[in-house]
Amino acid sequence: MSVTEAGREFVATGSREALLARFRRVRQASITMCRPLRAEDFRLQPIEEVSPPWWNLGHTSWFFVRNVLEPFGGRLVREDAQYDFLLNSYYASLGSRLPRSRRGSITRPTTEEIYRYRASVDQRVEDLLETVDPGHLDALSSVLAIGLEHEQQHQELFYTEIKVILAQNLRELRQPYRAVPEEERPVDAVDPLRFVDFAGGLLEFGHRGQGWCWDNELPVHKFYLAPFALANRLVTNAEYQEFLDDHGYDQQLLWLDNGWARLQGEGWHAPLYWERVDGCWWLWTLDGMRPLPPEEPVCHVSFYEADAFARWKSQTAACHRGVRLPTEREWEQAARSTLCEPQEDAFLESDRLHPACAKGGRSLAQMAGCLWQWTSSYYEPYPGYRPFLGVLAEYNGKFMDNQRVLRGGSCVTPREHFRVSYRNFWSAPTRFQFTGIRLVRSEE
Amino acid sequence: MSVTEAGREFVATGSREALLARFRRVRQASITMCRPLRAEDFRLQPIEEVSPPWWNLGHTSWFFVRNVLEPFGGRLVREDAQYDFLLNSYYASLGSRLPRSRRGSITRPTTEEIYRYRASVDQRVEDLLETVDPGHLDALSSVLAIGLEHEQQHQELFYTEIKVILAQNLRELRQPYRAVPEEERPVDAVDPLRFVDFAGGLLEFGHRGQGWCWDNELPVHKFYLAPFALANRLVTNAEYQEFLDDHGYDQQLLWLDNGWARLQGEGWHAPLYWERVDGCWWLWTLDGMRPLPPEEPVCHVSFYEADAFARWKSQTAACHRGVRLPTEREWEQAARSTLCEPQEDAFLESDRLHPACAKGGRSLAQMAGCLWQWTSSYYEPYPGYRPFLGVLAEYNGKFMDNQRVLRGGSCVTPREHFRVSYRNFWSAPTRFQFTGIRLVRSEE
Amino acid sequence: MSVTEAGREFVATGSREALLARFRRVRQASITMCRPLRAEDFRLQPIEEVSPPWWNLGHTSWFFVRNVLEPFGGRLVREDAQYDFLLNSYYASLGSRLPRSRRGSITRPTTEEIYRYRASVDQRVEDLLETVDPGHLDALSSVLAIGLEHEQQHQELFYTEIKVILAQNLRELRQPYRAVPEEERPVDAVDPLRFVDFAGGLLEFGHRGQGWCWDNELPVHKFYLAPFALANRLVTNAEYQEFLDDHGYDQQLLWLDNGWARLQGEGWHAPLYWERVDGCWWLWTLDGMRPLPPEEPVCHVSFYEADAFARWKSQTAACHRGVRLPTEREWEQAARSTLCEPQEDAFLESDRLHPACAKGGRSLAQMAGCLWQWTSSYYEPYPGYRPFLGVLAEYNGKFMDNQRVLRGGSCVTPREHFRVSYRNFWSAPTRFQFTGIRLVRSEE
Amino acid sequence: MSVTEAGREFVATGSREALLARFRRVRQASITMCRPLRAEDFRLQPIEEVSPPWWNLGHTSWFFVRNVLEPFGGRLVREDAQYDFLLNSYYASLGSRLPRSRRGSITRPTTEEIYRYRASVDQRVEDLLETVDPGHLDALSSVLAIGLEHEQQHQELFYTEIKVILAQNLRELRQPYRAVPEEERPVDAVDPLRFVDFAGGLLEFGHRGQGWCWDNELPVHKFYLAPFALANRLVTNAEYQEFLDDHGYDQQLLWLDNGWARLQGEGWHAPLYWERVDGCWWLWTLDGMRPLPPEEPVCHVSFYEADAFARWKSQTAACHRGVRLPTEREWEQAARSTLCEPQEDAFLESDRLHPACAKGGRSLAQMAGCLWQWTSSYYEPYPGYRPFLGVLAEYNGKFMDNQRVLRGGSCVTPREHFRVSYRNFWSAPTRFQFTGIRLVRSEE
Repeated sequence: MSVTEAGREFVATGSREALLARFRRVRQASITMCRPLRAEDFRLQPIEEVSPPWWNLGHTSWFFVRNVLEPFGGRLVREDAQYDFLLNSYYASLGSRLPRSRRGSITRPTTEEIYRYRASVDQRVEDLLETVDPGHLDALSSVLAIGLEHEQQHQELFYTEIKVILAQNLRELRQPYRAVPEEERPVDAVDPLRFVDFAGGLLEFGHRGQGWCWDNELPVHKFYLAPFALANRLVTNAEYQEFLDDHGYDQQLLWLDNGWARLQGEGWHAPLYWERVDGCWWLWTLDGMRPLPPEEPVCHVSFYEADAFARWKSQTAACHRGVRLPTEREWEQAARSTLCEPQEDAFLESDRLHPACAKGGRSLAQMAGCLWQWTSSYYEPYPGYRPFLGVLAEYNGKFMDNQRVLRGGSCVTPREHFRVSYRNFWSAPTRFQFTGIRLVRSEE
Repeated sequence: MSVTEAGREFVATGSREALLARFRRVRQASITMCRPLRAEDFRLQPIEEVSPPWWNLGHTSWFFVRNVLEPFGGRLVREDAQYDFLLNSYYASLGSRLPRSRRGSITRPTTEEIYRYRASVDQRVEDLLETVDPGHLDALSSVLAIGLEHEQQHQELFYTEIKVILAQNLRELRQPYRAVPEEERPVDAVDPLRFVDFAGGLLEFGHRGQGWCWDNELPVHKFYLAPFALANRLVTNAEYQEFLDDHGYDQQLLWLDNGWARLQGEGWHAPLYWERVDGCWWLWTLDGMRPLPPEEPVCHVSFYEADAFARWKSQTAACHRGVRLPTEREWEQAARSTLCEPQEDAFLESDRLHPACAKGGRSLAQMAGCLWQWTSSYYEPYPGYRPFLGVLAEYNGKFMDNQRVLRGGSCVTPREHFRVSYRNFWSAPTRFQFTGIRLVRSEE
Repeated sequence: MSVTEAGREFVATGSREALLARFRRVRQASITMCRPLRAEDFRLQPIEEVSPPWWNLGHTSWFFVRNVLEPFGGRLVREDAQYDFLLNSYYASLGSRLPRSRRGSITRPTTEEIYRYRASVDQRVEDLLETVDPGHLDALSSVLAIGLEHEQQHQELFYTEIKVILAQNLRELRQPYRAVPEEERPVDAVDPLRFVDFAGGLLEFGHRGQGWCWDNELPVHKFYLAPFALANRLVTNAEYQEFLDDHGYDQQLLWLDNGWARLQGEGWHAPLYWERVDGCWWLWTLDGMRPLPPEEPVCHVSFYEADAFARWKSQTAACHRGVRLPTEREWEQAARSTLCEPQEDAFLESDRLHPACAKGGRSLAQMAGCLWQWTSSYYEPYPGYRPFLGVLAEYNGKFMDNQRVLRGGSCVTPREHFRVSYRNFWSAPTRFQFTGIRLVRSEE
Repeated sequence: MSVTEAGREFVATGSREALLARFRRVRQASITMCRPLRAEDFRLQPIEEVSPPWWNLGHTSWFFVRNVLEPFGGRLVREDAQYDFLLNSYYASLGSRLPRSRRGSITRPTTEEIYRYRASVDQRVEDLLETVDPGHLDALSSVLAIGLEHEQQHQELFYTEIKVILAQNLRELRQPYRAVPEEERPVDAVDPLRFVDFAGGLLEFGHRGQGWCWDNELPVHKFYLAPFALANRLVTNAEYQEFLDDHGYDQQLLWLDNGWARLQGEGWHAPLYWERVDGCWWLWTLDGMRPLPPEEPVCHVSFYEADAFARWKSQTAACHRGVRLPTEREWEQAARSTLCEPQEDAFLESDRLHPACAKGGRSLAQMAGCLWQWTSSYYEPYPGYRPFLGVLAEYNGKFMDNQRVLRGGSCVTPREHFRVSYRNFWSAPTRFQFTGIRLVRSEE
């Protein structure tokens, strides 16, 4: 039994002990990240896309119940049935479920009950892992690994969701996710913008090697790339502010038609979390409100804003004529060619919870663990794509419609969760994720 | 300074001590009623009409800040300004405010902070009461009394709101407001339905005497009533179920046009909180789910349902030809003629939190403290109506549009809050209040 | 067979010839009024409340098919069945029907086919009238008379609907309903505003005498009125403009809560059809755009605007303290006391299609055939109200919810259709009818 | 002056006479196609996407006013300014415009006035063409040619729009676009389904040669295709009905998530225009209602339906494992390899107004002029894409978001308008266009 097809089955390698240790570590991380929250923060769903933290805690546990405990003969308890309707996200093959928009509209189970449920699931998974028939261990390990990858996705989501939740409050009553000492932040001198040439050609893309990956990163396939030059770093707040100051949000001709409609419908006039106070721009961060740091990469922009910015840049600066957003394969090719160690101020483990500046003159800075970078590519199946088998067939494939791929991981992505072939995806208007802009230029 | 006009000013009589004692008692009741709640229950706003409990606790305190502390020179603190925008309900003259629909969408102030704020307001009002210039005491007492009446209205609201909030949960996860011992409930034999004759004539209506009342109960005015006969008790669940069984919810011709549209739009097929489980009707109560008691008065019906029921009754039972809902003045005239002591199982003080059966053969049973009774009267100003002065002019007058009057008080109304001239009002589709049906019949 | 109950049956008196003559006259009027229209104007439904003219022509014919031809054995044709679903307005007892909002979204039957259908119905009704068994003639005449009253209501509606339809066009492309010679309009000197005293008392209201009336005008009943003083004329444009100039549309405290919400939701800033062009107010009329005539009565205001205007007037002018909108019985009592001949510039027959000024010093001017006058009274059943029997029970009763009564008839009401007891009714936000404001003042 | 960039400018070759002749022919075709309409049919906008015919006639004329007459010094008339706001579709650079949804909600200009306006524009364009400075003739010809291509797009749209408009009517009142003699339609024996192999490789795509094309067909670029096998014909009604009979519209797992939401929201249960009458499927066509012909290609399916059908087919028939929708470049490569003369029953000129069956054993049947065929490709700019210059930059580029490419032309496409590189595009839920399904299979 395996969720993946013959021929590309991923066996979670390593001993029971190693698997158990990873299980405990990842599961614990979800608990730890909720420590700073007040009871109120666990229940709010400010927009349909943002699930309240209690639900995240429950849903990631439910995933193990339905995909591990049930199929592999683990112990079940009454709450498994009671919470099933509430905690199923979108798996039609696992039965009916609470409409997504209603996750913030119930008060039972309480947060305390959800924590107890997590503990119960953890214990039962550990028991199962110890007692499972050795002949099923590989299969169990496979699904368990997926459950942990799934949980890490929700850990990243958590930071973006709690940022939205706390931002709902009146500015004067708003509290940061965590209280940080008010230290002097040195102004970083960022690397000047350069474009790094890549040769293109008929190349291979997708996940290579034996390690685990999502079904959407496969199969490896050929694709022809024309030569291109990728920006050495992300667009900064200062550069983006020039776009604002040039009335970029008022010039319809810079925008895709759908983007302009969204801009008008939602009253966009700056990136999400930019707030104008007494004539100055401030930024809402997980550490609270801060004056907008000009050197930091611009963050929380939609695809439409990234695209309009690139068009504006292409038209206004002669030296940037023809700049645009990269395709996902341009990004991947560049990343493969140059990626060495991510910067040490990258990924969730840096504990910054905020994107770091580009400095130190790397050939390509901020490629991993800083901000997800919008590509112009739609989230499409790779040629020959096959979904996971069984329940998990619903994990990726059915969402391959009208979404754009983002690459690179962000400052709230767990480092071990990331790969150079990793494909994140969101619909074009999305702004609450840690999303930034990297430009590319074609050879003319 | 007074909120009421010369000529009909109500002076809160009695000593500072008496006023202080009442202040403490009423304020404490709001705390006490929240004791059974879990942290989660304080923040939910399931529909726009239902405010979350934290907001009720805050708003009733804010009322004293803006109407007592500010105008009479009490001590102000930083939170007064910080919370003002959040806690103003609908007073345009007191500045801008959070849209009503967003009371469930913020997490600050926390519930704990709101409790602290209540305590601060209480202390400061008590301080003011002790130190106020004697020349202002009467005026202060007047407004303070209104603040307490206002708080009692929110206490009644609280019980109806928490009933909705808890009902949002899945049936198997739903918890009652309070856990009651599972005692055997004796089946009550209710009084048979009779109609009690009243003579009519050119009569006076409205609040008489020196006691305090809302502006909408005045002035006393003449009104001509034709003779009528009022039902001795409310309609029971058993009687209402006959309407259901006769397909009352499918017969368009029984319904007002707006009522039929609402029925279809919201899928009404029974009163709110009637739930069909395995072929039997159950009832959601503050004590949890119970099999539908046939002898109890039907509750949680909209005006449209009450009106359609009366029309059905009038058409199907020859002996009930011509029954309808009473006007508010028919109800008031009957109440004045016969009201003696309310039944001891009535009002909030009975601690039933649920309507009691009619038994014991009173001339008119269930007239006070059982259920609010829909009248056919619109909530209109009495001839010569004058709103309170100043801020409180917004309390009643501006809502006199497309609402119907209810009379009688309910099982969650504080007894001292009620008067025979009391006019409650809700829009016709409202179902989450404790609303019932009393019929009347005209002399032909 | 009769639509009205025993005891208050109206027999259409007169010979077959007289009835036939009236039938032809009323039916022809609906044709005549459509003559000025272009083909395009017949099909538009700009808002749900406004039916396109083709539908009006069809529906008024359908009324005779279902209420006259069918029950009395007239000849039926294929189109009767084919059009039935389309032309039924709201009679649940006559089967399913096209949702009201879709009357402008079909192209068949064509307007030409509808005209042919009208002619066919006319011929068949005339045939029936000639051949009907004398024993059924009275009953037939009764229903026929109702059909004609119904048609006259739609004739009035037509003028209000075509005014909306033509107003949809761009100002520079808009064409008037009829082209009138550009004559010099003399400025009228209007009667000064006065208040005429009425004594009140326990009085009788409702339709008296033997003539025909709608079921909602009955029964005659007693009602006590306190003394009051009614304005001698309607409020003028000049007087209403003072309200605008005093920022009446910006002062929330002047408005009912529902009215303020509507004002904000729909962006009201002046009466319907007032348009600001180059700093001056213009008025859209059935004769085209005209500079706002200050002496004419203000028209096309909602109940909310009328009510807010009265409140503003009451607060700003010491001499008008306590003015408000009249109740429908105050209006009726005043009208009965003083009504003689309507002014000659009144009603549809004057062919003005626009309200006339008050001049000539009548005791009470503009009481009939000028503008419908908002009263503060809800459209409620009179005590003891009984709907028509059978199908026509749906004509009035089910709409008695959240509507306000208007009295007086308008410049587009056929004179013979009007009575002093006539109760028109619209919901409070309605502005496309010919509605104006008359004030009243109570004795203090 | 030219709308296209240096280096890829298309000069409309040929004499003034040839251009004039084409101008007259294309413009006349728009008149001819409206001949069968009734006056009512010209004004209806049943859904926002469908413009009423009067608007199409006006808008295609307006296009010449703003892009030809104005820039090249043609004669202007008052109506040019008067209608400008109404007839601008989406050109932000040409000023403000009527919201798209309101094209069916005005009655002026009348249809007659629009016809007059067309004649005036035609005359003025012809005058300009005769008098224009020879130095500007090439530029003028370029834009004029675009105007005619634009008009041909609207001619195709017209047939799809009038099909929707007429379908709004009740089935028994519905009239076909044209009355055809009731001849016996021979049942066609369709070619059996086969898959034709193509080798793939690093190939070139986009418009080649000197002829005119839209900006979105350029530049020619390399793209790598893996080997594939394309179905020899379109999916038939009979084949699609198997999908229905297998409950394809009830199986959520077959559908993209967005597609399932749309299916549920709009109640899809069959292709558009399939109607169930007395247990049999009927089809609405421009020739009226016809029993569903099993051999004809299925038509009026959304991308979501096409995609779900392919997934179902892939899963249910072993011999069809791996079938899917083709990419646009797979389609183009196959078309280039095999396309010879289109079938004679293809394109608008065949006057079928309906897709023809595949018969006669062509290698690839129905590739051109039968139905637009959904591809899985998003409508993206080709690498190096440059929009037209000036106003016409808004023609294509800003719509390149969340739309899918369709290839092949349809039975209502003018033959001369089509090219093998032609890219049509619609959003995935679109059903009112003539859209069908062709399958492809990858080499495994």
